[in-house]
Amino acid sequence: MRVLGIDPGLTRCGLGVVESRPGRRAALVDVGVARSAVEAELPDRLLAIGVEVERWLDRARPDAVALERVFAQHNVRTVMGTAQVSGVVMVAAAARGVPVTLHTPSEVKAAVTGTGRAPKAQVQQMVARILGLDEVPKPADAADALALGICHLWRPATSAAGAQGTHGTAAQQAWARAEGAARRGR
Amino acid sequence: MRVLGIDPGLTRCGLGVVESRPGRRAALVDVGVARSAVEAELPDRLLAIGVEVERWLDRARPDAVALERVFAQHNVRTVMGTAQVSGVVMVAAAARGVPVTLHTPSEVKAAVTGTGRAPKAQVQQMVARILGLDEVPKPADAADALALGICHLWRPATSAAGAQGTHGTAAQQAWARAEGAARRGR
Repeated sequence: MRVLGIDPGLTRCGLGVVESRPGRRAALVDVGVARSAVEAELPDRLLAIGVEVERWLDRARPDAVALERVFAQHNVRTVMGTAQVSGVVMVAAAARGVPVTLHTPSEVKAAVTGTGRAPKAQVQQMVARILGLDEVPKPADAADALALGICHLWRPATSAAGAQGTHGTAAQQAWARAEGAARRGR
Repeated sequence: MRVLGIDPGLTRCGLGVVESRPGRRAALVDVGVARSAVEAELPDRLLAIGVEVERWLDRARPDAVALERVFAQHNVRTVMGTAQVSGVVMVAAAARGVPVTLHTPSEVKAAVTGTGRAPKAQVQQMVARILGLDEVPKPADAADALALGICHLWRPATSAAGAQGTHGTAAQQAWARAEGAARRGR
């Protein structure tokens, strides 16, 4: 299974592709950041991010998109742009028939570190360790996108079946169940 | 000048096309609502609205899109969906080179009724009167979209020049100046 994790943002939108490997491992496929010029007008900024996300979808051909769930009570100054980018991402995925699952930041932290309250640096260290990378991917948005992808690969099959927009094959579901069991046994 | 006013919403997205006429008048071209099924998944709902907005853009060929500016402090339960729809609308317009201007609800009320604190029913009555309609357009989202379009037609040229994404022709700007002067003289 191949997952495109997306950390939505108007200035920097993190993009990370991860793939499941035998033996409960995850591998890095690609990672990067879509950017838009701060001085550009909002519609053009959203279009720039949207075009880049479409390119990643068409190039990586993921089985699923894992997108960070945005909450209205977070930073009010940036939340509207983040929500707008999320909308653009969801439409790009839906137009290609790629299911989108939303994961909260604490779900992602718990999946990668075992605790939903882990500091950002710990999450990023674990992303590098899980994917067998020598260094933490930079910038932080890129590492966060990979953490979203790993979270989606490692989610328990029970929650996956109920999650929004998730339609795994029987094999994917079995793999997810095995992943979940292994993770809970750590 | 032809303006597509859009009142963004996930369940009902109001769409109204208005056109400037000689003698400081505005005419109705088309009005309607894009809908998405409440029980559908969020990405599919956004795609349904997005596809419909693209159809309106391609059919009406507006010179500008007037979109309601969404504030994070409003109804937290619905604001995220509204922001996501706004993002989708802005990308659809930007991809077609149609400038988008955001108008606050109080700007729209002031443009149509003369006061930024007018109740919704008064705004809708004025929309019908301005466009010479026998009845108030239904549902409210459709009337609100027309109000956004009228607000954009009647905006003062000075603010139009500074507004985001507005690139009127010299004739459009002159018309807008005349409109603004006439409106201020009421």
